[in-house]
Amino acid sequence: MKKEKIYIEPFADMGYAKIDLHRAKRKGFPEVVFCQGKTKKQILAIAAKICKANDVVMLTRVNTEVGRALRKKFPKGRYSAEARIFYTGRLRKKTGLISILTGGTADIPVAEEAAITAEVMGSKVQRIYDVGVAGVHRLLAFREIIEKSRVLIVVAGMDGVLPSVAGGLFSKPIIAVPTSVGYGLNLQGITPLLTMLNSCAPGIAVVNVDNGFGAGYIASTINQL
Amino acid sequence: MKKEKIYIEPFADMGYAKIDLHRAKRKGFPEVVFCQGKTKKQILAIAAKICKANDVVMLTRVNTEVGRALRKKFPKGRYSAEARIFYTGRLRKKTGLISILTGGTADIPVAEEAAITAEVMGSKVQRIYDVGVAGVHRLLAFREIIEKSRVLIVVAGMDGVLPSVAGGLFSKPIIAVPTSVGYGLNLQGITPLLTMLNSCAPGIAVVNVDNGFGAGYIASTINQL
Amino acid sequence: MKKEKIYIEPFADMGYAKIDLHRAKRKGFPEVVFCQGKTKKQILAIAAKICKANDVVMLTRVNTEVGRALRKKFPKGRYSAEARIFYTGRLRKKTGLISILTGGTADIPVAEEAAITAEVMGSKVQRIYDVGVAGVHRLLAFREIIEKSRVLIVVAGMDGVLPSVAGGLFSKPIIAVPTSVGYGLNLQGITPLLTMLNSCAPGIAVVNVDNGFGAGYIASTINQL
Amino acid sequence: MKKEKIYIEPFADMGYAKIDLHRAKRKGFPEVVFCQGKTKKQILAIAAKICKANDVVMLTRVNTEVGRALRKKFPKGRYSAEARIFYTGRLRKKTGLISILTGGTADIPVAEEAAITAEVMGSKVQRIYDVGVAGVHRLLAFREIIEKSRVLIVVAGMDGVLPSVAGGLFSKPIIAVPTSVGYGLNLQGITPLLTMLNSCAPGIAVVNVDNGFGAGYIASTINQL
Amino acid sequence: MKKEKIYIEPFADMGYAKIDLHRAKRKGFPEVVFCQGKTKKQILAIAAKICKANDVVMLTRVNTEVGRALRKKFPKGRYSAEARIFYTGRLRKKTGLISILTGGTADIPVAEEAAITAEVMGSKVQRIYDVGVAGVHRLLAFREIIEKSRVLIVVAGMDGVLPSVAGGLFSKPIIAVPTSVGYGLNLQGITPLLTMLNSCAPGIAVVNVDNGFGAGYIASTINQL
Amino acid sequence: MKKEKIYIEPFADMGYAKIDLHRAKRKGFPEVVFCQGKTKKQILAIAAKICKANDVVMLTRVNTEVGRALRKKFPKGRYSAEARIFYTGRLRKKTGLISILTGGTADIPVAEEAAITAEVMGSKVQRIYDVGVAGVHRLLAFREIIEKSRVLIVVAGMDGVLPSVAGGLFSKPIIAVPTSVGYGLNLQGITPLLTMLNSCAPGIAVVNVDNGFGAGYIASTINQL
Amino acid sequence: MKKEKIYIEPFADMGYAKIDLHRAKRKGFPEVVFCQGKTKKQILAIAAKICKANDVVMLTRVNTEVGRALRKKFPKGRYSAEARIFYTGRLRKKTGLISILTGGTADIPVAEEAAITAEVMGSKVQRIYDVGVAGVHRLLAFREIIEKSRVLIVVAGMDGVLPSVAGGLFSKPIIAVPTSVGYGLNLQGITPLLTMLNSCAPGIAVVNVDNGFGAGYIASTINQL
Amino acid sequence: MKKEKIYIEPFADMGYAKIDLHRAKRKGFPEVVFCQGKTKKQILAIAAKICKANDVVMLTRVNTEVGRALRKKFPKGRYSAEARIFYTGRLRKKTGLISILTGGTADIPVAEEAAITAEVMGSKVQRIYDVGVAGVHRLLAFREIIEKSRVLIVVAGMDGVLPSVAGGLFSKPIIAVPTSVGYGLNLQGITPLLTMLNSCAPGIAVVNVDNGFGAGYIASTINQL
Repeated sequence: MKKEKIYIEPFADMGYAKIDLHRAKRKGFPEVVFCQGKTKKQILAIAAKICKANDVVMLTRVNTEVGRALRKKFPKGRYSAEARIFYTGRLRKKTGLISILTGGTADIPVAEEAAITAEVMGSKVQRIYDVGVAGVHRLLAFREIIEKSRVLIVVAGMDGVLPSVAGGLFSKPIIAVPTSVGYGLNLQGITPLLTMLNSCAPGIAVVNVDNGFGAGYIASTINQL
Repeated sequence: MKKEKIYIEPFADMGYAKIDLHRAKRKGFPEVVFCQGKTKKQILAIAAKICKANDVVMLTRVNTEVGRALRKKFPKGRYSAEARIFYTGRLRKKTGLISILTGGTADIPVAEEAAITAEVMGSKVQRIYDVGVAGVHRLLAFREIIEKSRVLIVVAGMDGVLPSVAGGLFSKPIIAVPTSVGYGLNLQGITPLLTMLNSCAPGIAVVNVDNGFGAGYIASTINQL
Repeated sequence: MKKEKIYIEPFADMGYAKIDLHRAKRKGFPEVVFCQGKTKKQILAIAAKICKANDVVMLTRVNTEVGRALRKKFPKGRYSAEARIFYTGRLRKKTGLISILTGGTADIPVAEEAAITAEVMGSKVQRIYDVGVAGVHRLLAFREIIEKSRVLIVVAGMDGVLPSVAGGLFSKPIIAVPTSVGYGLNLQGITPLLTMLNSCAPGIAVVNVDNGFGAGYIASTINQL
Repeated sequence: MKKEKIYIEPFADMGYAKIDLHRAKRKGFPEVVFCQGKTKKQILAIAAKICKANDVVMLTRVNTEVGRALRKKFPKGRYSAEARIFYTGRLRKKTGLISILTGGTADIPVAEEAAITAEVMGSKVQRIYDVGVAGVHRLLAFREIIEKSRVLIVVAGMDGVLPSVAGGLFSKPIIAVPTSVGYGLNLQGITPLLTMLNSCAPGIAVVNVDNGFGAGYIASTINQL
Repeated sequence: MKKEKIYIEPFADMGYAKIDLHRAKRKGFPEVVFCQGKTKKQILAIAAKICKANDVVMLTRVNTEVGRALRKKFPKGRYSAEARIFYTGRLRKKTGLISILTGGTADIPVAEEAAITAEVMGSKVQRIYDVGVAGVHRLLAFREIIEKSRVLIVVAGMDGVLPSVAGGLFSKPIIAVPTSVGYGLNLQGITPLLTMLNSCAPGIAVVNVDNGFGAGYIASTINQL
Repeated sequence: MKKEKIYIEPFADMGYAKIDLHRAKRKGFPEVVFCQGKTKKQILAIAAKICKANDVVMLTRVNTEVGRALRKKFPKGRYSAEARIFYTGRLRKKTGLISILTGGTADIPVAEEAAITAEVMGSKVQRIYDVGVAGVHRLLAFREIIEKSRVLIVVAGMDGVLPSVAGGLFSKPIIAVPTSVGYGLNLQGITPLLTMLNSCAPGIAVVNVDNGFGAGYIASTINQL
Repeated sequence: MKKEKIYIEPFADMGYAKIDLHRAKRKGFPEVVFCQGKTKKQILAIAAKICKANDVVMLTRVNTEVGRALRKKFPKGRYSAEARIFYTGRLRKKTGLISILTGGTADIPVAEEAAITAEVMGSKVQRIYDVGVAGVHRLLAFREIIEKSRVLIVVAGMDGVLPSVAGGLFSKPIIAVPTSVGYGLNLQGITPLLTMLNSCAPGIAVVNVDNGFGAGYIASTINQL
Repeated sequence: MKKEKIYIEPFADMGYAKIDLHRAKRKGFPEVVFCQGKTKKQILAIAAKICKANDVVMLTRVNTEVGRALRKKFPKGRYSAEARIFYTGRLRKKTGLISILTGGTADIPVAEEAAITAEVMGSKVQRIYDVGVAGVHRLLAFREIIEKSRVLIVVAGMDGVLPSVAGGLFSKPIIAVPTSVGYGLNLQGITPLLTMLNSCAPGIAVVNVDNGFGAGYIASTINQL
């Protein structure tokens, strides 16, 4: 997959898609394909186009059917069904450290989307799952190893309380991710989102509900400053 | 204020109000007058009516002007401007113990409404204010004395996180009170209400936003079981 | 299932879950497993872990498939498909009395989740179902036997009016549970939740929509004070 | 105020207003002026215009300043500051009977808007105020006299429960009016509106929050069928 | 189906249901069974119970499977799959006249629920469907025959505009029914509900979204005054 | 499909539908059939009725099954599965030029509904898809050819930002169409709708979420002024 | 105010504001100053800057105090307190015709903002105020003169029904403007906004609540195509 | 203000407040006092307490009256009325660079709250105000100097579009701050918040509406990694 690129067109026009070939130049990482709402045929064509112009290509919200098709086309690529991510190409050397915490077990798929995104973008990741505040001693037990990381991603559904408590304990920037995990008035994640936005603890910023990719992306950007 | 009551009418019809004189018989405590939306004249007349038929009378959401008028009419009564409560009569002997916690300083007026309500209804109260999770060690420092109480009232605005953390630490029933304290997307208290309703920690039930009276009432009822 | 426990670890780290083994010590009842969003494999492993360290284990939101798997693994356990609860172990002796009322027939599954939770936690329960206010004489007919209980759980969907009426009649603490039963502007239970939070009758606190478990838990805690 | 009308223009064009002079012909009652958002000058001119072409004219949401100006211009007219209604002209003979109930004392202004509207339109009205369900015996005490009316208007704020209970007891059509009376999550009357729309008891229809006029209008129309 | 009723119990206790046997006495029509959320077995048993104590029994929100089972058990009964209503018994003689209008074709199922309810309760009904304001001349063409009715039911989804226009034209009371028909920001019927509640035309009251039964019930009650 | 129309009835009454035959006369284009919520049988009958009285007939929200049935009945008609539109008849000569932009690939079905609507109504259309602001140079690359059009339709989901940016660059009227494309807090298109309504750039008006038809209709009307 | 402009800077940087001096070049009309949230001093300085580089300058949401200050500084300018608009400079010759309709008298300030905006931008405007559907004959009376206009602006609060009815009658593009006029569930204009977005009549697009300026701007742009 | 601190208590209990004296140790910056909802007396006492135990003290949401009182008590302190911030003490040496962008002039107070927070915490800040997308060339003109910063704070009200466009252009982490600036459906900042959460451009995280302090805090934390 070596390439002697001298000049890249700013975008490739495929009619139904205009692939942004200057994304890596501007943003430091190539365009990531959000697969939801695209047909399998479109996804495969777009992936091929990006692949030609970049070292690495990543696709998110990849369902298992599309995942299988991608692995067939890009045999060296890897697919995580849990994170719904497919990626292929030359990975960067991992630096820094991001800690990813979840309030519960059901938040793990969103956490994994964040984790793999950050890893593909070149960050080291440590996973500390199911440390919600119903038993706050679980979080405290990991205090020391969390303090070693440069950025925290805190994923929580239900009441979304974990980032507030983490924000009271740790000095590093926290990216909070509300999930749609819960029932009753979880409101598809609006409840933990509101909790996180209104946190009394400083040093927290929030991404969209279930947006593990967004959290992994910005956390990795911060980690690599 | 001694009374030789032999028979009480079920209610007193004043046209604009039908005072429930059997409330104490059914509920264990006389009708409490919610003053918001009533004229000063109506409030004074209603208070007089209840006073005649009961040992004690309590009024809530009493502004300072009405408070002054009530103290003039019932010189033995007491008025708390912070809690916006006026009460007069023969107080019960206080039993049991209720701990009232707040997340911040600005939550105190709601907490005081709860505290005085519970005290008037015959409960002992200990106040532990400003122990929000941005510095969770403050709460932990009071752990032992909180554990001595039979019921907890936990008052919080902003992100409403405190009841969840308390719910993880204490075995006694918790009445959570969201307050409209905050800014941005606090949404007049809807945010902490949602946090509390979705708490991962068991043993929590919630009352209306800023409803210190409701919290004090049910906590006292539980305390005196 | 006898155990000679001398020392228990504060939690068991299974990677995807950190089981809180000190929960019973702090809260008086072991960690209850909320099964929604967990895989069957995870649920079975977690249940086994909790079972080892505690007298009793309870799982909620258990679908029938997982229910079957649990009964296979824990042949002495019991599964209620209506309440979606599985539990096994040494039950406590039942004390006190909780009355559980519903507004309609369709609210019964939520009521049963509350009832079984309270029973497993050691409370006696009497069920009084379908006594909504469209025919208020039905409620009045049970007045005497309801007054014998220490706590009331009142479950209602549609307009959520029953707790307000019960709150006017009974002196014991009421835990109100809104359900998502209804149509049109029931709004997945937001309507009865709002009704209950704004009740004019004092002595009512509310749990999340459809949260029978939460109601049973706090009611049992109150009952056993 | 006698008039020999042979022919009326369908409307009078005043530029900022086009007065509907055929309203009485089509609807049985002349155009009612909603004063909110109109200037005093506009209101006086519109009232004069309607007055010329009709037996009676009614204005709603009239503040005290405009009320005084109207009484100066129409000395025979009557103004209720509580109901914020001004009317003048030849009143119809009152027939039928409408019962107007309120849950509390603070709901009375809205109830009065309904009451006076119905009276001006020719209906007899009986007022039964402050019979909320926190003491349901108050409502039951008036059962017999309520049953004599042809239509009920039930006005309630807070949890909006009264129409549901009335709907379980009475066979006549009920027009329910939510009010913005309350606090916390009353949500400016959305809470009682939702309660009323979702009532389990049949025979209830609802008008807009605080819309006493709308309730009085349709109740009177029904009463006079 | 002749019955020699001398005395009827106030309700029949079936455990999961307490059938209100005095409903007809209080409300003029027996309890109507709302089938959603009840099992087929429960529905059949409840229907049998009501049937024994009353002339007529009506069930709403009956899906086709339950409809078949009911027809098997009550061979003389009638089932409308469109209206989802089943009824059986001695129908009353029809009197008066109710006009039922819809804005579009897709609103017809809700209109039919209203129509059959009113007919079973003893009202004559005329159906005038698909007369929305995109072509207002369609409504005007039926003006004369609509004016002959005592009550109007106006059913509309999308923007919910029809009741406002009808309210400007007709003097009889209008029961407006919002439907969940539409797309985009119809919001499951909240949009037409809001339009109807805020109508500038007087003489309109509203029932819950898709609540054809409620509209038919109150319209019939009004019609038979 | 030649017709010697001398006189057309204002509408055709089919019971479940009143076809507006004067629509073309008033609005310049015949009634368009919105198929959602209508049965296949109803749709075919309505299409036949309109077809007889007009040059052209268009149906929207046509699923593939109904699409097949329509092609069988009207063999000369055309069906776009992507746009869910069927039309048949004598098309007008295309004039003017409308540019249709989308933010992403997943917005294309809505854009196609707009495009085909505009084309059937006689407008030329140029499609410029996937030019969202994550790579704003893509939009700038098409600046010149967009400036040739008389009207712009800008379709966007997610954050709905594209119309604001287009509104800053182009002087022609912009019809903005929010789509329900997105996840997390896209809120079924409410988010891009709000963004578009609050745009800082002047010259933008908005249609309902996913309402490609509405956008194509008004854009074509503007284009042909 | 003659100017020999040879070259204009793309923007003027005043620190707190970067005036867009190329706006007229790109959009055909200079930057309009939205005064809300700016200090009087800022407004005067910005107005002076724009004035120098353009023929005409317009400011919106100008309160009376700022209006006075502007008239002092720009004595030839004109201020409408009702529309809250100030403008000065060389007006264009008016062409075309826009009809502006309102549902009621209270909608006139928003209508005037639209009217003056359109006039300043060079469109002729005819005002037809207070033609709401409670008396639809008022609208029909103006049918002929409305049909002469090239674009319609329809302004309505309360239920927001007028654009739907106008959309059924007229073939020209309609810009609908919801206003915050109303009470109860008008919801600060959300109710008429929703009505307008969901209109069954085609040919309607909507601007933000109370956004008379936005409506006048796009209507004028359309008018001058 | 030199201090020889050997040991600091974890918190200071003032009854109405428990000052977190270990905050600087855990979080790297002392507790910041949020003044809204606290009395002047409380604020002064709390500030004095924090001042004693730390190098620097910062207070936010300080109104002018409290600002004056603070300057009297701490004559070396500085107060910004625009940012509503007061601070005093030994400032850190400024490092790194944060760019703060606003969409409009009215967003500046929120931007200043962020700017001063970041400066007090030791970051260099460059302010680039009023570069909204209605004239996107203004943003592009500052492209080069923005690229020199390590973190971006982007503040926007109205439609909240600026962070999306910035996110497409710059590779550094972006903290987006929605403001309540706007009208109509700005919804007190919910609209720009939703736009920002749903941004198509990666690398953006969001803080609460108008939360300049929160943005400055996390940006500074990131900047100093």
